[in-house]
Amino acid sequence: MSAPTGDIGLIGLAVMGQNLILNMNDKGFTVVAYNRTTSKVDHFLANEAKGTKIQGAHSLEELVSKLKKPRKIILLVKAGQAVDDFISHLEPLLEKGDIIIDGGNSHYPDSIRRTKELEAKGLLFVGSGVSGGEEGARYGPSLMPGGSPAAWPAIKEIFQKTAAQVNGEPCCDWVGETGAGHYVKMVHNGIEYGDMQLIAEAYDILKRGLGSTEDEIAEIFTQWNKGVLDSFLIEITSNILKFKDDDGQALVTKILDKAGQKGTGKWTAINALDAGIPVTLIGEAVFARCLSALKDERIRASKVIAGPQKEEFKGDKKQFIDDLEQALYASKIISYTQGFMLMRQTAGELGWNLNYAGIAQMWRGGCIIKSVFLGDITAAYQKNPKLESLLFDDFFNKAVHKAQPGWRRIAAQAALWGIPTPAFSTALAFFDGYRSEIVPANILQAQRDYFGAHTFRVLPGKENAKLKAGEDIHINWTGRGGNVSASTYLA
Amino acid sequence: MSAPTGDIGLIGLAVMGQNLILNMNDKGFTVVAYNRTTSKVDHFLANEAKGTKIQGAHSLEELVSKLKKPRKIILLVKAGQAVDDFISHLEPLLEKGDIIIDGGNSHYPDSIRRTKELEAKGLLFVGSGVSGGEEGARYGPSLMPGGSPAAWPAIKEIFQKTAAQVNGEPCCDWVGETGAGHYVKMVHNGIEYGDMQLIAEAYDILKRGLGSTEDEIAEIFTQWNKGVLDSFLIEITSNILKFKDDDGQALVTKILDKAGQKGTGKWTAINALDAGIPVTLIGEAVFARCLSALKDERIRASKVIAGPQKEEFKGDKKQFIDDLEQALYASKIISYTQGFMLMRQTAGELGWNLNYAGIAQMWRGGCIIKSVFLGDITAAYQKNPKLESLLFDDFFNKAVHKAQPGWRRIAAQAALWGIPTPAFSTALAFFDGYRSEIVPANILQAQRDYFGAHTFRVLPGKENAKLKAGEDIHINWTGRGGNVSASTYLA
Repeated sequence: MSAPTGDIGLIGLAVMGQNLILNMNDKGFTVVAYNRTTSKVDHFLANEAKGTKIQGAHSLEELVSKLKKPRKIILLVKAGQAVDDFISHLEPLLEKGDIIIDGGNSHYPDSIRRTKELEAKGLLFVGSGVSGGEEGARYGPSLMPGGSPAAWPAIKEIFQKTAAQVNGEPCCDWVGETGAGHYVKMVHNGIEYGDMQLIAEAYDILKRGLGSTEDEIAEIFTQWNKGVLDSFLIEITSNILKFKDDDGQALVTKILDKAGQKGTGKWTAINALDAGIPVTLIGEAVFARCLSALKDERIRASKVIAGPQKEEFKGDKKQFIDDLEQALYASKIISYTQGFMLMRQTAGELGWNLNYAGIAQMWRGGCIIKSVFLGDITAAYQKNPKLESLLFDDFFNKAVHKAQPGWRRIAAQAALWGIPTPAFSTALAFFDGYRSEIVPANILQAQRDYFGAHTFRVLPGKENAKLKAGEDIHINWTGRGGNVSASTYLA
Repeated sequence: MSAPTGDIGLIGLAVMGQNLILNMNDKGFTVVAYNRTTSKVDHFLANEAKGTKIQGAHSLEELVSKLKKPRKIILLVKAGQAVDDFISHLEPLLEKGDIIIDGGNSHYPDSIRRTKELEAKGLLFVGSGVSGGEEGARYGPSLMPGGSPAAWPAIKEIFQKTAAQVNGEPCCDWVGETGAGHYVKMVHNGIEYGDMQLIAEAYDILKRGLGSTEDEIAEIFTQWNKGVLDSFLIEITSNILKFKDDDGQALVTKILDKAGQKGTGKWTAINALDAGIPVTLIGEAVFARCLSALKDERIRASKVIAGPQKEEFKGDKKQFIDDLEQALYASKIISYTQGFMLMRQTAGELGWNLNYAGIAQMWRGGCIIKSVFLGDITAAYQKNPKLESLLFDDFFNKAVHKAQPGWRRIAAQAALWGIPTPAFSTALAFFDGYRSEIVPANILQAQRDYFGAHTFRVLPGKENAKLKAGEDIHINWTGRGGNVSASTYLA
């Protein structure tokens, strides 16, 4: 038996897996392909992989035997039980220092668990976000690997060469410990939900507000794609809007307005609620999909609820479109600000050392949210790796100040027109709350103390003999209640 | 040994427990009180309970021995392990048909589990929401019992007499099976978060927008409390605003603007995300509390981010305040609409038969969200128990139509002023989305098909040979990709 020559093995020959193998092959690596239904291996070798260095395996034993040590095996199978099953089948075949990589859409708590389980057995685990869909997998995805730090030197070259490159830099770097790779991928997907919702709202305002046609909107998006909004999603939306059905009508107008959601966008919103970080834009984007899904109820509601009288737009259209561009841009800055706040919070809770500039760089190319904008975020975190918030960075601080007047005009106009802008509006509300030294939560605290003796703290600078700093204060607001604190109920 | 005379036992003598005992005693029931630290029992009997029929017990055995059959025992202890511990200690002492009632703030999945576990052992379980704080417990709380339906006839009289009464009707009825009582209490608390946030936003607009003083705002709330907003929270907010510190300044201006959140509001928002129901107002209310908690970060942000130029209000103040009242009212209608949508969805998923008119009636009095408004909701569901949405009810439909112009003006003005109104704005966005036959989710579906081959469906009325009804359609948007569906990756 000859010495093994495989650089890496891959399990799971659906489109993503096949494309990733072909991509790694192009970059000079020898990949060993395996699939549980082994006829897929033969078919792949005889077709897509024909004439390449790609090798096939018809059993896990054969796969392992064809790999150089330390062995590296990527799983691209359905998230959940299938990942655990393959891991438990591989474990007895592997040796100390071998690496199992999960490239599927696993939830990060599973990756935290798997890292610990495999490390306890002397193996290494990597949970890697893989973004960019079929095309990304084939020509250069965004790769977000995290897990056992000891695995990184062994996979770094393969991962960084396989990933998308932007300005000579790979869209792949080590994310962090245990579940950090899948966590960052989850937040990425949440941000993707937000970006898409913002574009949908801009489209809606142009269509229902200005009365623009799909061709006109496509042209606006084409223009925007040359400025601060330059990104994959703006580009493809322009292409989508231009795409005609056989009868010459824009195909997009024939697509059912019901969007699915059950996945990573929802996980991000739930994570934000658990972490106590106001990631409001992703939350609204997920809920907007939920509302879109209630199509039948919306149809019935549309027949019994009238909006405001439709008025033709009489203002300066060019100014309005510029305002809208700024509204989209500012809202996007808020969404990424919120996303990075969430990552910072979770990294603190879980003890991860996240490299924020690296994360922005990983998203810079290869994935759905790739954009010039992410280059600016990379630069901000390179300049200050401990940056508290994107809004404290000079570049973004100037950008939101510049965007602010137009952003406000758009939010106000949409409210008056009756066009729903949950994402634009929540971004603005967050911005105005975030920059407020005082928010009206004093009212909430007073109410909670009034009805439930929940106590409050004194505002710094307002201390006195009764209102002492650092103390939980209860006031007998009505003269009727006692002086007991609600905490006794929980004690 | 004489025959037992206790009608019901109660475990947990913190303020809530003591007050509920005194309340039941007032209504003519003989209550047996027990606490793990038994000195509390003696203290209670010698003080608050002196001269009443209330009995004490110094062990669970004694407690059980003093109760008539079927025995009814309410736990008012800390949610979580303590509830399970007491249940397991009580179980061996009880007989078939005896009833354990959990009146704490348990999460409903625990109540679902406990119902099943106790029913399997021949016992009955009730998980009951108890709302109204200390004062509610003492003089008439809102009680929301669910669990084993067979328990209801045995506890109905005690519960309905102990509960608050509004217009001769008790604010207590059977909610539904297994965890339905605690579920409805959870949604109630989420709605409470929303109501409080709306009031805080109205205060903020009056204070920072109109420049009103606390006394002026108190007077506005007093006026509002005579109209459609007539409610406990509006009333106490008026009282809070009038409450002066010793130096004559409004005490509320000295309260730290950091609100806590980790509880049932968050659970409601997470439940909404899981259920796929856009309960956006509660979501924003929870996130607003999260943002308030980031006080130090907000202070730093306030120093580097400027809002719009402050302009004095030159319009009609009376009109503006009327608009604000309508904005608050309409937003509140949306919040309750969303809450009832969520309950309907969950009831469908879990097979509960929820009595919506009964739920509104339970919230009508005795609890924090009690209001005249809930009487209108009760009436709406009494008129049509299968009402799809509050917005389809004549009364509320007319109300939102009437409120709409002012609501929009407030949302627009707040955006221009730079005053955050996350709850007002999300309510309006939901309203405008809900009444839209077409929302721009067609863009999302096109994007998802473009970058991930996720497929879409055709809009009814737009079918043709290529776009067939009921089919998952994939378009090769670029001419480059294949015709594979992303679903193969998940297969």
